[in-house]
Amino acid sequence: MALISIIEDFHPLNDARLLYRAEELKPSLHHEVVEPVGGFQLKERYSHEKEDIVLHKVPHLAMGKGQNLCLDFGSHQVGYLTLELSYTGSHPDAPAFLKLKFSEVLDELSENSEEYDGWISHSWIQEEYVHVDVLPASITLPRRYAFRYLKITMMDTSPKYKLIVKHAECLTETSANIRKFRFEPTGDELNDRIFKAGLRTLANCMQDVFEDGPKRDQRLWMGDLRLQALANYSTFRNMDLVKRCLYLFAGSRFPDGRISACLFTRPTVAADDTWMFDYALFFVIALEEYLQETNDIETLNDLYDIAMQQIETSLRMCGENHVVNREAAESTFIDWCESMDKTACAQAVLICALRYARRLARRKNDWSQANWLLQKLELLRDAAIAEFWDDERECFVSNGQSAIAAQVWMVLADVLEPEKARRLMERDSEFMTPYKMATPYMHHYYVMALCRTGLMDKAEKHMKEYWGSMLERGADTFWEAWDPDNPDASPYGGKVINSYCHAWSCTPVMMIRKYFNQKGVKNGL
Amino acid sequence: MALISIIEDFHPLNDARLLYRAEELKPSLHHEVVEPVGGFQLKERYSHEKEDIVLHKVPHLAMGKGQNLCLDFGSHQVGYLTLELSYTGSHPDAPAFLKLKFSEVLDELSENSEEYDGWISHSWIQEEYVHVDVLPASITLPRRYAFRYLKITMMDTSPKYKLIVKHAECLTETSANIRKFRFEPTGDELNDRIFKAGLRTLANCMQDVFEDGPKRDQRLWMGDLRLQALANYSTFRNMDLVKRCLYLFAGSRFPDGRISACLFTRPTVAADDTWMFDYALFFVIALEEYLQETNDIETLNDLYDIAMQQIETSLRMCGENHVVNREAAESTFIDWCESMDKTACAQAVLICALRYARRLARRKNDWSQANWLLQKLELLRDAAIAEFWDDERECFVSNGQSAIAAQVWMVLADVLEPEKARRLMERDSEFMTPYKMATPYMHHYYVMALCRTGLMDKAEKHMKEYWGSMLERGADTFWEAWDPDNPDASPYGGKVINSYCHAWSCTPVMMIRKYFNQKGVKNGL
Repeated sequence: MALISIIEDFHPLNDARLLYRAEELKPSLHHEVVEPVGGFQLKERYSHEKEDIVLHKVPHLAMGKGQNLCLDFGSHQVGYLTLELSYTGSHPDAPAFLKLKFSEVLDELSENSEEYDGWISHSWIQEEYVHVDVLPASITLPRRYAFRYLKITMMDTSPKYKLIVKHAECLTETSANIRKFRFEPTGDELNDRIFKAGLRTLANCMQDVFEDGPKRDQRLWMGDLRLQALANYSTFRNMDLVKRCLYLFAGSRFPDGRISACLFTRPTVAADDTWMFDYALFFVIALEEYLQETNDIETLNDLYDIAMQQIETSLRMCGENHVVNREAAESTFIDWCESMDKTACAQAVLICALRYARRLARRKNDWSQANWLLQKLELLRDAAIAEFWDDERECFVSNGQSAIAAQVWMVLADVLEPEKARRLMERDSEFMTPYKMATPYMHHYYVMALCRTGLMDKAEKHMKEYWGSMLERGADTFWEAWDPDNPDASPYGGKVINSYCHAWSCTPVMMIRKYFNQKGVKNGL
Repeated sequence: MALISIIEDFHPLNDARLLYRAEELKPSLHHEVVEPVGGFQLKERYSHEKEDIVLHKVPHLAMGKGQNLCLDFGSHQVGYLTLELSYTGSHPDAPAFLKLKFSEVLDELSENSEEYDGWISHSWIQEEYVHVDVLPASITLPRRYAFRYLKITMMDTSPKYKLIVKHAECLTETSANIRKFRFEPTGDELNDRIFKAGLRTLANCMQDVFEDGPKRDQRLWMGDLRLQALANYSTFRNMDLVKRCLYLFAGSRFPDGRISACLFTRPTVAADDTWMFDYALFFVIALEEYLQETNDIETLNDLYDIAMQQIETSLRMCGENHVVNREAAESTFIDWCESMDKTACAQAVLICALRYARRLARRKNDWSQANWLLQKLELLRDAAIAEFWDDERECFVSNGQSAIAAQVWMVLADVLEPEKARRLMERDSEFMTPYKMATPYMHHYYVMALCRTGLMDKAEKHMKEYWGSMLERGADTFWEAWDPDNPDASPYGGKVINSYCHAWSCTPVMMIRKYFNQKGVKNGL
């Protein structure tokens, strides 16, 4: 997730007590040393053509000016790189000048990052220039990288010597306890492969918070957190990490109390000046889901009022007709699809949030609030039908558009009777263009809508096709954005800036364990 | 100094006792914090055109993508940079990606280092790319730099914020005790200015050894050491540092005992696989000069045999006619002037070395050796006249060339009677082309030859003109190579790689104190 919002003189409202509690919940990190499993050389500077190198010969490869060595660390890693460097020839009489390029997928290696001209900062591209003054040397880079491949280019040695990379290793870092995790084969090979890639995606995004992506942006986004938490409940069950993130979002908010779409944790915790209608409401949903798993009364008591405040803020953005206004629609994310009208989706997300808020109120024995929420829910549901259901086209239409996203979210909001919802999802192919689903984030909710209407086979088939097509393309972890029909697309104006291990894409682990491994079970959104 | 020699499987002969003594003599370093005195912006990426910035406003200059800030640290510094960075705008949502370019002179700032294509390693160019993940931040770069100017270019921020450089400082490093040094005005303003620049040159090259240049190559070269030692005797008088360097050269030599032209001290002490006829002989000369200053018997006893061994090696390179052979001539440096024949110069350096060796023998009461050296000296002096003196042209001719270097070195070798030598140096303009003096190193010996023949005014005038012309061009310290008629020349194929604080250029401090401040005194070579 990445989005640009700028509010001048923005000072988040910080709650020291909640932030202190979040700090107490900071996880310890697990480490592992990973060495390369293979090596190759790219024939030209920005070429795709490669020449394989026998791994045990790599330590003897002498690199002169302009030469490169690509190391393959076997799968996607998040951690710190150490290189042991030596030389051959005369005593080095000038520093070794190296360029290190870390890449999550093979395609990135042959891209010229200087050509990237999209709207995301070029500074996310994982490239470093390093001078090594004394050889032999063991160098450990101070920054953390997300990568499978490492391309080492000798920018210059001197005519007197060549560089040798004797050893390379990555000290991985994650708060997921992978060693304790027990993988249970499903009997379906593709599902097992998808599960494993999803699990690695989740684990590599689990750091001292749930990061959206370990390459970029390396921080908490509310929409991503909600999906990570769901995947976590089906796998690592690190409840404290979810709790910590909920406290962080509650602990630093907009001055008027709204939950920010995203949080910074360094140098100190600070809400970003970005607010999104749907992301703020996911705080309510994620809190209730956390309580379903833990029944943690401390968290309910601490965060209940803040959750209700998000509902109230959103309800104030509805008109007299109980339909969300233009501002709400324009502040709603749903998917990377700029031309899509998001009014119907925003309405549906708010209805979902009201359902979850009502459950929270009942947990809290706050019956008057629960009743009030039920009234609101019914008003908004009726308004959704009145405003967005097109009897003729038999689908939801938002400002003339019948996008799949609108159908999906209205199904998830239970706006239709079950049989009508099922018939709508059976006809989903009618809504797939021109407002195509762009991200695994949207595909997740699409699969959930299929599950919710009982279309389990269709749901599983779609998961296998969509997430499976990333595996076919060489994914070790699932990607931030992916359109199998348009593999080179990027919402960020260039693939080199894409995140290829992205939290919101990890949910197949939950789908497989919760839905497709025990077909027919349909609980949860 | 920089030269390329490559010997396969070169293993220096190390003497643990001598190296241990050298280690014991390692100096402590003095530090000082230096802050910028001014700032400016270059208008275009590689432009010379600059816009001055009021220094107290620098901390408020917000730098977006592509913008630069140049800081002026007032004079040439050697040390470590610390930057305090902050931002303006929204909370940084992407790393700050900076390029830092350190330059000794203004010209370097506007050069595109990527275009450098000379024979010296590009890795000496003082440029770094730095990612700063968390702001505000205080970053200290781990490498030492030699610079007056620092250009900070924002490669990228993000649309959400701009970078502010709140503070910059350089923690300088030198083993010269500058605080204790007392400057004595000469009454001649230009001489004072030259003296100060020479002193700074010397101090900035005095680290844990006498480096040739703190930018490049940052290590001991024998020819440079000899001149640094002389300058040091007239100024800081750090005798232990000279002793340490002599022990280092003696402690790691060629397998056959020859003194290497250059030494590495990191990661451990190791002779380079470069031998030069003249540089090896400067060990003998520098040792005797050190003893003149210190009368340090331990050093005489420890290094005497090694000094004599250099003489013997060199004498073996003379033919039956007592003239150095082609191999000797081709291994002789003298100056960056590749087309010049160096036979006469090599012969003259050897004669000088024999004179110094004889003094060493007398100090050691090694009378038979002293006599033997005198015999050799006379044989070689006679051979020099027979082989190189051209009666018709009344000058020294080496393979048809009557270069100034040959005249200078023959004068310094006392091959001519004083009156004849003086007449030769009076006609020096006849020998200035086509084999022009290229470096302050050669200009030093030229001035010394003028002094030796009593042409003190001419010597001082030349010093003022030559070293003064560097000051006119903005020098804070004296340069490795400089031709006032061809200011853009570089022996290294590009000015960006030149060293602008170079040890062998610091000798005016000695000239002024020893010769021009007390005119008429003529001792020393």
